[in-house]
Amino acid sequence: MTTDHIGHFPFLVEPFSEDFTGRLSWRFLGNHLLRCASLHAGTHGFGYSQMQEAHHAWVLSRLVIELDEAPRTGDAYVIDTWVSRIYRQFTDRLFAITDGQGRIFGHASSIWALIDIDSRQPLDLSAMENGGFSEAVCERTVPIAAPGRVRVKSEQPERCLQARYSDLDINGHVNSIRYIEMVLDLFPPTLLAEHPARRIEMSYCAETYAGEELQLFHDAEPSGRHSVEIRKIDGQVVVKAAIELS
Amino acid sequence: MTTDHIGHFPFLVEPFSEDFTGRLSWRFLGNHLLRCASLHAGTHGFGYSQMQEAHHAWVLSRLVIELDEAPRTGDAYVIDTWVSRIYRQFTDRLFAITDGQGRIFGHASSIWALIDIDSRQPLDLSAMENGGFSEAVCERTVPIAAPGRVRVKSEQPERCLQARYSDLDINGHVNSIRYIEMVLDLFPPTLLAEHPARRIEMSYCAETYAGEELQLFHDAEPSGRHSVEIRKIDGQVVVKAAIELS
Repeated sequence: MTTDHIGHFPFLVEPFSEDFTGRLSWRFLGNHLLRCASLHAGTHGFGYSQMQEAHHAWVLSRLVIELDEAPRTGDAYVIDTWVSRIYRQFTDRLFAITDGQGRIFGHASSIWALIDIDSRQPLDLSAMENGGFSEAVCERTVPIAAPGRVRVKSEQPERCLQARYSDLDINGHVNSIRYIEMVLDLFPPTLLAEHPARRIEMSYCAETYAGEELQLFHDAEPSGRHSVEIRKIDGQVVVKAAIELS
Repeated sequence: MTTDHIGHFPFLVEPFSEDFTGRLSWRFLGNHLLRCASLHAGTHGFGYSQMQEAHHAWVLSRLVIELDEAPRTGDAYVIDTWVSRIYRQFTDRLFAITDGQGRIFGHASSIWALIDIDSRQPLDLSAMENGGFSEAVCERTVPIAAPGRVRVKSEQPERCLQARYSDLDINGHVNSIRYIEMVLDLFPPTLLAEHPARRIEMSYCAETYAGEELQLFHDAEPSGRHSVEIRKIDGQVVVKAAIELS
């Protein structure tokens, strides 16, 4: 189903897809957002397999998710997604998460680059043959702030972990959404039960492979905002995250 | 769809539900098995919510999964499930995982107890009012061995971890399938790529709550079988597992 280049993907919160609060888990929601992005790109001719033929691959650079309220077990929800902008080496993809009948659960925004698989260099998306993907652009916006800048001052890791089998996705590196769980795992569940995450901002800087050690650095700011950096042992930043609890 | 008290649940291996080998992940498969169990029980009058009304709850005691071959991205698969036996405090539930057209991906068996929520004591399932669930029993079998006995001799934990937000399910304790991932996380992914797990046997002995520390003890037996015990700091055994790699 596609109207005005907006993809509509209906889901149900199935048992065993909730977190301990009984609401759709960030893991399920996050992976469904990525899946909808992939399906929508596929129907417009620039999905994973089409890009692979041209030796290109989409790389997620930023992801912001804001949830006013996560759906509960048995609730129906719809993910709308569309490409809102193409500019040089990046394209913005937006998401609306609703009950399909006017109730808004939340929104998300993402920034992607298209890289050449061989050179690992990003392509200029605004200068592609035949206008590239510009026909897919839809100007609908979402009412969430753009990602900000994350700086973590703490030099003492709050947690160290090793990337393992269950962290990896089909590409052999740590799944983008798994990092959201790693960040949320820094908080005691009792805190998250009373103050669920309202906004999660992820900036993806590097890939992590199986066996690599990761260190999580965490600043709790007076504003209630939490900043997290996930770094490799040699200091390379893998992920920067900002979390706002409700 | 139900025939002869067998529930048939069709699925598709969706993108982001695979592990790094490109096959349906144990996490997805495992949670789908539990979900099918729950749906099937619900249609027969002994599901989660029906039992809750009577202050009863199903508790998973054993789970064995054997996979000849896991389906890949885009593959359709069907989970058949039925109750095969009711005896005293336990009931056996079996599963067949096929492509719905004769190709067998694997099988699973599980043992459940029904406890009284207040007393935490198991009920005698063979002595329930009106025959209990005996009408649902179907004698179809599965060609996998019953779970064996797991003994781990190693006294040196191979890994220690703390139960965190992302490990918990809606009940507030570590998800049964998450323990399978904890066990598989003991193996280097390079090993699992060449020798994927063929049989996983889980025996659930106690619940783990957020913040509790777990220690994983692991014996590699000369037969190629791996035995794992997950224990709390005080020595209480939470899970016993036996893994056979292919």
